[in-house]
Amino acid sequence: MTVFDIEVAKRFKDLDPYDHVSNAVVVDYLMEARVRAFRLLNLEDRGIIGQVVARQEINYRRPILFGLEPLVVKTWISHVGRSSFSMESEVWDEGHLAADAKTVMVCFDVQSRESREIPGEFRRVLEANLHASS
Amino acid sequence: MTVFDIEVAKRFKDLDPYDHVSNAVVVDYLMEARVRAFRLLNLEDRGIIGQVVARQEINYRRPILFGLEPLVVKTWISHVGRSSFSMESEVWDEGHLAADAKTVMVCFDVQSRESREIPGEFRRVLEANLHASS
Amino acid sequence: MTVFDIEVAKRFKDLDPYDHVSNAVVVDYLMEARVRAFRLLNLEDRGIIGQVVARQEINYRRPILFGLEPLVVKTWISHVGRSSFSMESEVWDEGHLAADAKTVMVCFDVQSRESREIPGEFRRVLEANLHASS
Amino acid sequence: MTVFDIEVAKRFKDLDPYDHVSNAVVVDYLMEARVRAFRLLNLEDRGIIGQVVARQEINYRRPILFGLEPLVVKTWISHVGRSSFSMESEVWDEGHLAADAKTVMVCFDVQSRESREIPGEFRRVLEANLHASS
Repeated sequence: MTVFDIEVAKRFKDLDPYDHVSNAVVVDYLMEARVRAFRLLNLEDRGIIGQVVARQEINYRRPILFGLEPLVVKTWISHVGRSSFSMESEVWDEGHLAADAKTVMVCFDVQSRESREIPGEFRRVLEANLHASS
Repeated sequence: MTVFDIEVAKRFKDLDPYDHVSNAVVVDYLMEARVRAFRLLNLEDRGIIGQVVARQEINYRRPILFGLEPLVVKTWISHVGRSSFSMESEVWDEGHLAADAKTVMVCFDVQSRESREIPGEFRRVLEANLHASS
Repeated sequence: MTVFDIEVAKRFKDLDPYDHVSNAVVVDYLMEARVRAFRLLNLEDRGIIGQVVARQEINYRRPILFGLEPLVVKTWISHVGRSSFSMESEVWDEGHLAADAKTVMVCFDVQSRESREIPGEFRRVLEANLHASS
Repeated sequence: MTVFDIEVAKRFKDLDPYDHVSNAVVVDYLMEARVRAFRLLNLEDRGIIGQVVARQEINYRRPILFGLEPLVVKTWISHVGRSSFSMESEVWDEGHLAADAKTVMVCFDVQSRESREIPGEFRRVLEANLHASS
């Protein structure tokens, strides 16, 4: 039931020769919002639960220009499966939807590097914050 | 009918705290392969024909470690529409498929910034090199 | 007489395999602070006055870890010459000096690409904000 | 007595809004050349000997444009001290010197994070390859 509104600052370095934020940098913005949303959920402990991005879909809706104001990346958990879960995001730039994305994450065991069931404690937090997509 | 085998060098800077190439950097590899495939097709003239990425889907299959050997990014044109076209890619790392991706590009007019039909000359090159996906 | 305290947000993507911000990313932080200081001085117009970095010296004092709090990059104009000027910076991370740097910028003519005298209007702003190093 | 000629591939992503390689990316090129030179010296084992960049000086001589040909980064060990050593580099782009740099590295103990003497085995390799600057 939780949508995180994560502020992500732009950098001049994000610009490409068209004077727009490079499409590849939008993926950095999504990562940053995801990491910060996890911090807000007290899920930062990378040592115990490993997660990797298994799939990512991004729609680029509008070019993003440089500016001092941060983007707002709306981020929510949209699905919780057995060993994977999905997060969805919208990148808002000065009141306009600039991009949206869906990211599938898979849990793995840090030692064996094998995929594993989402640990119970982690699953409880994910499910408590699950937000169906509109 | 053309699949480009584009060598893309890794950089140590591409690594994240897991000692893997960051998932966001895989998008840089895809961009690099696309740009280099376009050079091979003599389509580099950004001044006349603008194209932007409208959508990208990436499946991450295996972690990519650092090494001196370049990746091979297989890249092909998989669809040509009215104002958009699609490119597909496979990122091969030391003989293994590490990621695959589909990228939808849209042509736009550099002056007006509006989307436009793929120009005739450009379309001819795209269609001559179209390669249906397996 | 002006020292700008520019907040620069960290990104998880800035981390390297040592779990520290990569030394190369500190250069991004310096660039970001410089661009933002210029905006505060109403000097953002890249179309008229071109400047490039001619030299940069950076001392890395402490590793920078990831965190949600922004860095504070203190930035000031330390010297104004004929066609070049210098900016100095200190990167402060959670109350500690993490890096300091000196950057020499050269003005050039956007058309001819030749170096040129700092334009009068631009020079007045630089000199009005000149801050001798401690 | 060794100067390494390390090829470093450019990426389209390296470009900034001026259509030049961003000055910050030149630091990535230096890092890449350093890492690859170390591999050639069989010094890649990050687990045992930690080194960090303590200081870097870079002179930007010419803008670097995108192209398919790699840069050649000449890299050599120019000084070996007690706990630190220096490397110098020249970035050559299509036959022209585009940048040169000096990097001071400090050895540290991976456990205690304190600086330490350069280990004997490592020192022998550094000294055997020492190349005085011209």
